Amino acid sequence: MSVSKVSNPKGTRDFTPGVMAKRNYLISTIERIFSSYGYQPIETPAVETLSTLLGKYGDEGDRLIFKILNSGDFLRKLDKRAQEQLNNEKVAASICERGLRYDLTVPFARYVVQHHNETPMPFKRYQIQPVWRADRPQKGRYREFFQCDIDVIGTTSLLNELELILVVQDVFAALGMEVELLFNNRKLLAAMAEAICAPSQLTDITVAIDKLDKMGLEAVEDELKGKGLSDVQIQTLRPMITVSGTPEEKLQALAPTLTAAQSAELGMQEVRELLSLLEKVKLTMPVRFDLSLARGLNYYTGTIFEVKSTEGAMGSICGGGRYDNLTGIFGLKDMSGVGISFGIERIYDLLETLDRFPADLAQGPDLLVLNLDQEALPVLLELTQTARRAGIKTLLYPETSTFKHQLDYANKLSIPWVAIVGERELAQGEVSLKDMRSGEQTSVPRQDAPAWLTQRIFPTDIKH
Amino acid sequence: MSVSKVSNPKGTRDFTPGVMAKRNYLISTIERIFSSYGYQPIETPAVETLSTLLGKYGDEGDRLIFKILNSGDFLRKLDKRAQEQLNNEKVAASICERGLRYDLTVPFARYVVQHHNETPMPFKRYQIQPVWRADRPQKGRYREFFQCDIDVIGTTSLLNELELILVVQDVFAALGMEVELLFNNRKLLAAMAEAICAPSQLTDITVAIDKLDKMGLEAVEDELKGKGLSDVQIQTLRPMITVSGTPEEKLQALAPTLTAAQSAELGMQEVRELLSLLEKVKLTMPVRFDLSLARGLNYYTGTIFEVKSTEGAMGSICGGGRYDNLTGIFGLKDMSGVGISFGIERIYDLLETLDRFPADLAQGPDLLVLNLDQEALPVLLELTQTARRAGIKTLLYPETSTFKHQLDYANKLSIPWVAIVGERELAQGEVSLKDMRSGEQTSVPRQDAPAWLTQRIFPTDIKH
Repeated sequence: MSVSKVSNPKGTRDFTPGVMAKRNYLISTIERIFSSYGYQPIETPAVETLSTLLGKYGDEGDRLIFKILNSGDFLRKLDKRAQEQLNNEKVAASICERGLRYDLTVPFARYVVQHHNETPMPFKRYQIQPVWRADRPQKGRYREFFQCDIDVIGTTSLLNELELILVVQDVFAALGMEVELLFNNRKLLAAMAEAICAPSQLTDITVAIDKLDKMGLEAVEDELKGKGLSDVQIQTLRPMITVSGTPEEKLQALAPTLTAAQSAELGMQEVRELLSLLEKVKLTMPVRFDLSLARGLNYYTGTIFEVKSTEGAMGSICGGGRYDNLTGIFGLKDMSGVGISFGIERIYDLLETLDRFPADLAQGPDLLVLNLDQEALPVLLELTQTARRAGIKTLLYPETSTFKHQLDYANKLSIPWVAIVGERELAQGEVSLKDMRSGEQTSVPRQDAPAWLTQRIFPTDIKH
Repeated sequence: MSVSKVSNPKGTRDFTPGVMAKRNYLISTIERIFSSYGYQPIETPAVETLSTLLGKYGDEGDRLIFKILNSGDFLRKLDKRAQEQLNNEKVAASICERGLRYDLTVPFARYVVQHHNETPMPFKRYQIQPVWRADRPQKGRYREFFQCDIDVIGTTSLLNELELILVVQDVFAALGMEVELLFNNRKLLAAMAEAICAPSQLTDITVAIDKLDKMGLEAVEDELKGKGLSDVQIQTLRPMITVSGTPEEKLQALAPTLTAAQSAELGMQEVRELLSLLEKVKLTMPVRFDLSLARGLNYYTGTIFEVKSTEGAMGSICGGGRYDNLTGIFGLKDMSGVGISFGIERIYDLLETLDRFPADLAQGPDLLVLNLDQEALPVLLELTQTARRAGIKTLLYPETSTFKHQLDYANKLSIPWVAIVGERELAQGEVSLKDMRSGEQTSVPRQDAPAWLTQRIFPTDIKH
């Protein structure tokens, strides 16, 4: 095998130390906010049994699940009849029992069902892990990517919705990003579908409306026509999804639905309650009630959210909603929950585009101790270990080589400080500390070096 | 599907918030030490192309790699002839192009080959990620488990070996565990094999010797006999692997090898140099030169390490060594490196058994704000958000329910502090803070509550 041929699979990524520093900053910022709201981390395995995964994401989703070949003598169980019929899915089902996690929601539902006896409710959890999809890779879309979800389950209170909005506000404030949050209520969308006498087409309608923002009214109405809706139905729908004005004006636009729909009243009540809760807190981020917000996933039953950057044309970077029956798919009823998923891959790309990653993000070692002279080794080792114990990330150059070679290495790794113990320093019990950014060099007594560096590397600590 | 049937796959685990707190403590402690030595994190994808993985771990390893079924029309490429011959491996090769990572070493080698032009050498990296093996699950052995590796590549200096020994010492000191480190040199084992005229049986010999500690001399010699070694060969080997005394005495026991073996002299020189380096640093952990230490993996070519707990009968919890040609499998020559893998699953179990996890490990929220009265909500929200901004992990109970119900919830989640705003507190602008461990309750002015709690929740911060 030649050197050039080896590579990671398409749609996957290696994270270099530079990328890891940025990802760790992003994830730890988000985790800090989640924790402050009392959300607790869980992790579930990458591998789930296929019966847990299949049938939860629609036919297209099922096709995109990576299936793991049974180990050992898988051929014994291979469905030969399905093979003759060229039925890939059926053959796959006969030789694969497990698959890779497709999202974090279904594994979370499985977790809740399996652990609910030991889990005090309400349960607030967050989960940040990779998922896998056999999608065609393209810019910004990967086969292996991270999801970052928070959910609270076992409570129907709209205080949870309020809190999620505050989490969003705090996360993006901490990241220095300007966003707006849109919300709507699935019950109102259901009421609209009922009002135009098309309750069974709720999914078609939400899928179409969801594109209003991107494709415009005409395209949405064309799609609805394509799904068999009449001109009258579409005309009734139009003012409801395009109305502007105050939230109350928008709710008024729904008047036609009130006579027909069961869920309209409850939906309006929920929206009014959430609006009233929002008035009780300090909002620094725009929060808009938007009747055209639909969200594609059909397990939502109440409030739905979407977050957009107001600085970049990135689309949705965060979304979620309330579901009344998520664990029902595994037989556990009456477990209402609400959650939001942060699109951390998109947020990462946006931070990169907007150049918002902190400039001083520690990307590597703080100090390189030069190794110029075999004689000095005991002194270098002592200096290196003392610096490390003081919390300074320290490299001792492992080979005795030239000054220039080692300074080059420090520059390549962007190491800000270099420690030099030459003949003179050795004789005088000193060490020369070179600031690689300014070029300035200072000699200090050896035992003072860690403290001297600490003050310069962690300047905020001086304040204490 | 009934509630009882849903579960995670055999050999995998869900990590609950309690387990996550302990795992995060373990991993962040290790990462802190790694960072202080200037090691930098990388991550590679869970999925690798099978050509990267196969043939690197022996036949048994190949069988234990989880293979991922090609998506789409995999049947088209299915090798029907191999199917007729009931050749599972060959059929698998025709319908699977990718597999799950089996360890972190081969992906690291792939990473180095792929990125070496942008990676300044020497490169010190650490990597903590799950790996997957289709092994039979049993107590302490999982199909999905974490590995934790550090390696430095692109340098032959024995200073790197010394440094890894210091990393081991620092990690286990930070975890409060007593361990000993054994080391040997593969060149000496190779020399022994040559000395008894069985150089081609080096692997058989190391595999057998590796069991000396667990099974005793007799069993090892039986195994060697079984592999075709003569009584004379075994008698020549015996004093070398059983010799006790000072390191120098052990090296002397190798005298018979010196006449015959090419590698003996170089191996002895390396051992002597490492011993001399060890004298230049402060060791608080026993470090023993042990000629019977062999390590199973056959890519090691120099120093080899193993770390054992001296408190529990857990076997090896850490091991590694020098390899001169790891990236050679991918066509990149002359890239010597040395690394150690920390068995974090075993270390976790040992910390659990020895009850060494810190008692105050933050497992959840610090404060529960009771929600007793709809009227008080604006006050509760203000209190909750102020506490969160002060870094206090705070829950606001989302439903208005009874005092008892909410206190029960605080107890179930082991939340140490509860904030109560009843009628009296509301009227007087106060909040009552209840210490759930002592039962003591104190009323403070509302705006003082976050500071009052901060002093009690983060007592060390007072010192600043």
